[in-house]
Amino acid sequence: MNDSAPKAAMLVIGDEILSGRTRDSNMHHLARVLTDHGVPLAEARVVGDDRDTIIAAVRDLAGRHDHLFTSGGIGPTHDDITAEAVAAAFDTPITVRDDARAILAAHYAERGTELNDARLRMARIPDGATLIDNPISAAPGFSLHNCHVMAGVPAIFEAMVASVLPGITGGAPLLSRSVTLAQGEGDIAEALGALADEMPDVGFGSYPYLRDGRHGVNVVARCHDPARLDAAMARLAALFATP
Amino acid sequence: MNDSAPKAAMLVIGDEILSGRTRDSNMHHLARVLTDHGVPLAEARVVGDDRDTIIAAVRDLAGRHDHLFTSGGIGPTHDDITAEAVAAAFDTPITVRDDARAILAAHYAERGTELNDARLRMARIPDGATLIDNPISAAPGFSLHNCHVMAGVPAIFEAMVASVLPGITGGAPLLSRSVTLAQGEGDIAEALGALADEMPDVGFGSYPYLRDGRHGVNVVARCHDPARLDAAMARLAALFATP
Repeated sequence: MNDSAPKAAMLVIGDEILSGRTRDSNMHHLARVLTDHGVPLAEARVVGDDRDTIIAAVRDLAGRHDHLFTSGGIGPTHDDITAEAVAAAFDTPITVRDDARAILAAHYAERGTELNDARLRMARIPDGATLIDNPISAAPGFSLHNCHVMAGVPAIFEAMVASVLPGITGGAPLLSRSVTLAQGEGDIAEALGALADEMPDVGFGSYPYLRDGRHGVNVVARCHDPARLDAAMARLAALFATP
Repeated sequence: MNDSAPKAAMLVIGDEILSGRTRDSNMHHLARVLTDHGVPLAEARVVGDDRDTIIAAVRDLAGRHDHLFTSGGIGPTHDDITAEAVAAAFDTPITVRDDARAILAAHYAERGTELNDARLRMARIPDGATLIDNPISAAPGFSLHNCHVMAGVPAIFEAMVASVLPGITGGAPLLSRSVTLAQGEGDIAEALGALADEMPDVGFGSYPYLRDGRHGVNVVARCHDPARLDAAMARLAALFATP
């Protein structure tokens, strides 16, 4: 498939994912919504709470993609170092910004909670960054250049993604359809490979599964053009129709 | 925490993860068993079915870690390009190897299934690699230098990991314990940061959650030394005991 759509990368930040304590769900969520938005996720990476590692990953991923989405590490505790690291990656100063402080002050005042020094850390925003609304717990994310910095808590991450996406120009969404075959992958491989060669504008994927001890395969076709996708599905049905 | 344990990385390979069609579970599984084995996962990456991208990721990750584990792309279809790409990453020739062919031949003969050209692709193994047993569908994985190449189907991936791990020398396992606090993260941040400074040999993580509309936080302490972990938990209890 020739594909000139804008491309995205994701950086998941947090020791708790790499230790297996927490199972990340943000990557799967982002992958789905980006696919629908026509900005396919080209790479995802998980790193720990280490400043130099985060800086290097942000520079690499933001440099090679149209957009970089990060998840995690923007809370009030000592291990929340994402905002500082992203600012450093772009050589941008970061301070407590008045607009972010005002959002936090209003939120905590309403709840009778002290806006202490730890919470004020969440108002540290790089110069020139645009705030990302947090409808759940107020502390904002931010977009700096092509890097969108969001919370790790899934409900907040998903809300932030929903508010960032409309501002991002997507390409034609990549459409996909699939067919499930009760055959071994090895039985369909040759014909599927020939079909992939025959229709280079369609991406064909083959995903074997084991269910109740039986092997089967899901074949997925992906394409920007609905008519070509129909054609691909017709060819798959003709090739692999069960008698 | 000073940590001289061997370090691992993971490379998940497959368009279906990045498109959001499939939710990966292998990373979470590997993270848990590696933590228990004393070979912490330091980085994980997800890339699509693209040869050059896989080669670059294998070289980068295998070069910077003691072990690299890959998942996906070793089946019989046209989109299964992991074995070839890993061989290329290490500049190693790859051919249908007699030992792998014999395993497949026996497996398919038993089932009356043809060992066709597509299935024979799964016997392509780099020169000098050690086979990894596949107790479920026979087609082996392999270890080449410090890179362990495994299937993407979770049941097969997990079985392969179980057979590789005993051959890998682990460090002292990183122990962890946690406490759940019904407080905002901002309320505990200052004292927790001070405790992290006071006990630099213990890693403290703070993970906020939202449950039924209420904020709380899980605080995790991680350490190789059980006595120090006990001390950390005692300090946490003293600092954050609810009255």
